Amino acid sequence: MVIKMYWTELKVKVRYNEVDRMNVVHNSNYFIYQEIGKNEYLDIIKLSGKLSDENGIFSPITSNTMNYVKPATFDEDIFVRIALYKITGVQITYISGIYNKDEELLAYGKISNCITDTNMKPLSIKKTCLEDYEKLKENECISAIGNNLTKKIIDDFFKNKKYMIKK
Amino acid sequence: MVIKMYWTELKVKVRYNEVDRMNVVHNSNYFIYQEIGKNEYLDIIKLSGKLSDENGIFSPITSNTMNYVKPATFDEDIFVRIALYKITGVQITYISGIYNKDEELLAYGKISNCITDTNMKPLSIKKTCLEDYEKLKENECISAIGNNLTKKIIDDFFKNKKYMIKK
Amino acid sequence: MVIKMYWTELKVKVRYNEVDRMNVVHNSNYFIYQEIGKNEYLDIIKLSGKLSDENGIFSPITSNTMNYVKPATFDEDIFVRIALYKITGVQITYISGIYNKDEELLAYGKISNCITDTNMKPLSIKKTCLEDYEKLKENECISAIGNNLTKKIIDDFFKNKKYMIKK
Amino acid sequence: MVIKMYWTELKVKVRYNEVDRMNVVHNSNYFIYQEIGKNEYLDIIKLSGKLSDENGIFSPITSNTMNYVKPATFDEDIFVRIALYKITGVQITYISGIYNKDEELLAYGKISNCITDTNMKPLSIKKTCLEDYEKLKENECISAIGNNLTKKIIDDFFKNKKYMIKK
Repeated sequence: MVIKMYWTELKVKVRYNEVDRMNVVHNSNYFIYQEIGKNEYLDIIKLSGKLSDENGIFSPITSNTMNYVKPATFDEDIFVRIALYKITGVQITYISGIYNKDEELLAYGKISNCITDTNMKPLSIKKTCLEDYEKLKENECISAIGNNLTKKIIDDFFKNKKYMIKK
Repeated sequence: MVIKMYWTELKVKVRYNEVDRMNVVHNSNYFIYQEIGKNEYLDIIKLSGKLSDENGIFSPITSNTMNYVKPATFDEDIFVRIALYKITGVQITYISGIYNKDEELLAYGKISNCITDTNMKPLSIKKTCLEDYEKLKENECISAIGNNLTKKIIDDFFKNKKYMIKK
Repeated sequence: MVIKMYWTELKVKVRYNEVDRMNVVHNSNYFIYQEIGKNEYLDIIKLSGKLSDENGIFSPITSNTMNYVKPATFDEDIFVRIALYKITGVQITYISGIYNKDEELLAYGKISNCITDTNMKPLSIKKTCLEDYEKLKENECISAIGNNLTKKIIDDFFKNKKYMIKK
Repeated sequence: MVIKMYWTELKVKVRYNEVDRMNVVHNSNYFIYQEIGKNEYLDIIKLSGKLSDENGIFSPITSNTMNYVKPATFDEDIFVRIALYKITGVQITYISGIYNKDEELLAYGKISNCITDTNMKPLSIKKTCLEDYEKLKENECISAIGNNLTKKIIDDFFKNKKYMIKK
């Protein structure tokens, strides 16, 4: 039996300007970490490049969310793990888990985007690029992780190194 | 019958550095708008000042979320509306609606925080400052808006000028 | 004798995320304040709108600098004052002074930009839009302030309310 | 004859949120790159740790400046090179050169800081920590690079790999 791999990891060092006066990372930066983790995921998955704003296809975020468990501080190395949770005809949803070097969960979140033309009119992912749609579909982790995205389920999933996609 | 007032409004002009290469506000900035709107709300409500990191009381965010409806662009005036949704012994949750000058909903979200000591140990809001707890409690909008926070319900609520707290 | 007016002022409230763990505004934000002050200046001066990236004319920054005198802190109102220092055929230079509500100088700086086509090839401002060039030229403050931009000279200049352009 | 090594290098990938609507890195981010490059330099030089805000010693920036030669774009790898230019009793000045993977100079700048107590009162670096002062002094590059910091001189200096401090 083959275990499917689902999540990628990006190491990030917390920058001085990202920390607030409580000496913890300001919440808005976790969304940036989540985004650069998602971009790393897409680099590793290797899509065709057709779904790019350089080709007139925008990928606006439709919603994002973050839950904070333990703060990160200046100069700390953190590990941003991302998996594609679910893709439909019009939306892609990713989940994230952000860890410190001791494998403690610092934050976990979700980010969804659609694709549109340059006038922000939504497009079908399937029709715009079937090849990429199918590649993303086969990397969905929803069947492995289930519908109930609790902290414990997300944490177990991202701690399971068998699911890790090596670069 | 007196109609209670619930939400405050802060006008913000979109800065050049907040816009991405699709010429729309980058998602991380909506969390900053939500936060400065929340701080404006707290200024207007006028708490005692005891729940402040200057007094050793931190207010870390426990979760935040944003849903994007229509993009804002450079130099646009946007209007950040915030109401206190619900306060429990340990957590305060606010809802937000971000509008353009034509009263179109651009984004709506939620932000929750707890209070802690300087070691990030959670504290009871009620026990730490009963006076502020009671003031916040009486400004809760959950009884007016209900449990089901759909886009339509949030939009109707923040469009209702009778609910607006004038500065 | 008529005294020419040179500088505009933009009031900005320091945001929570702009402050670092020393509880002072992180230096990178002063460049953002300087930029939004410059954009306010250009709004007030009212150019033709031809020198805009919407018309394929980019205005990349060629250099910027900031000197820090006294730190600003969270929630403080600060006042960003900007004057056009000098315009040549290929470059526009502005100077800035950032003040607190007690008219104390917090920081002062300089920002220069050129104009280019969409391929970042420099263009002559004069040839691209003579009308705007002339308007900017006539607002130059170099003849009033001189060549030697010391802290004292800049501070005296921006404290002189006779030079202030009212919105 | 031994050639002294002066500069350190930090590789940074340009983040999506750092790019503006001209698809080039917004100028304020170069100051962040310069700062994280400086922190990397200090990590490599290995000071005693006494000059840290954790010990009540602040290191506020007194001035910083950046000159822009060629824009960086989204997802590009850039290389932030930093050397200690000069240390006096009260101020430390670093110079920076930011390069793309083809060894083209994108930007170069300067950053100075003093050290203060927690009330922002300036302290003597020499008296506060002689050991660190001496270590920094011996890493000064001013004797190698000279007083005249032109673009060409800075570019030649940071292109000379013999001067590079390996991590």
